[in-house]
Amino acid sequence: MDPFLQAAIDEAQAGRDEGGIPIGSVIVHQGKIIGRGHNRRVQQGSAILHGEMDAFENAGRQSAQVYRESVLYTTLSPCPMCSGAILLYGIPKVVIGENQTFMGDEDLLRSRGVAVEVRQDPTCVGLMRDFIAAQPQLWNEDIGEP
Amino acid sequence: MDPFLQAAIDEAQAGRDEGGIPIGSVIVHQGKIIGRGHNRRVQQGSAILHGEMDAFENAGRQSAQVYRESVLYTTLSPCPMCSGAILLYGIPKVVIGENQTFMGDEDLLRSRGVAVEVRQDPTCVGLMRDFIAAQPQLWNEDIGEP
Repeated sequence: MDPFLQAAIDEAQAGRDEGGIPIGSVIVHQGKIIGRGHNRRVQQGSAILHGEMDAFENAGRQSAQVYRESVLYTTLSPCPMCSGAILLYGIPKVVIGENQTFMGDEDLLRSRGVAVEVRQDPTCVGLMRDFIAAQPQLWNEDIGEP
Repeated sequence: MDPFLQAAIDEAQAGRDEGGIPIGSVIVHQGKIIGRGHNRRVQQGSAILHGEMDAFENAGRQSAQVYRESVLYTTLSPCPMCSGAILLYGIPKVVIGENQTFMGDEDLLRSRGVAVEVRQDPTCVGLMRDFIAAQPQLWNEDIGEP
């Protein structure tokens, strides 16, 4: 298993174990994790701390150079907000655990030159399938659906 | 003066007075401000709390219905991250103070059906002109530029 995707999965599982939405992310610069995070909607009552956003926030203020040499790993296809953060900072490559339970803004990322790699990892799929089945309303809230 | 754009300007000025980046935003639902905020990069060492994101966060967890009946006001054209948040939550209308000092992802917003209104407000332009002249490096960091 890719250790960085595994680290993102570890974050997702930590979120699930806290009663939250099981999506995790890490940002990797030159082979080292510089930021990691998971969705905090439930835990912090947050409308913006998706897993990827939490990883950006925990990475702290970085130079443009660092972002432009980094890879973002996320357990789930990134929504428009997280895709926008990836574009803002010029992250050149995104590795996605799966896009079977939710399709984010991958086409926008590709259209702007971001390399997008989807792994269809069964652990990532299972985390989201179980969560969506158990808490469909919470999931809809997280993606702005009624 | 539009009282909601004025409220966004008040936020931007509060941010400036804290030594931060002078961009503010409010989210208005049925004529009432439900969230307001300003850029917190300097104040909180945040990579994600642009003015619009801070307003979303301070509005708290809202239903899809509320977002879909809301208008977002921002003193500056929204970057890809903030535009993505607007798209995630289905905000139907955005009022922008100005886009002369920075052009955000307005075309993406329009292409996905968001009504975008640009006011070219001289106070908003002045806040950003003064800030960019005084701290060009900090501004570049905020928009992911080297």
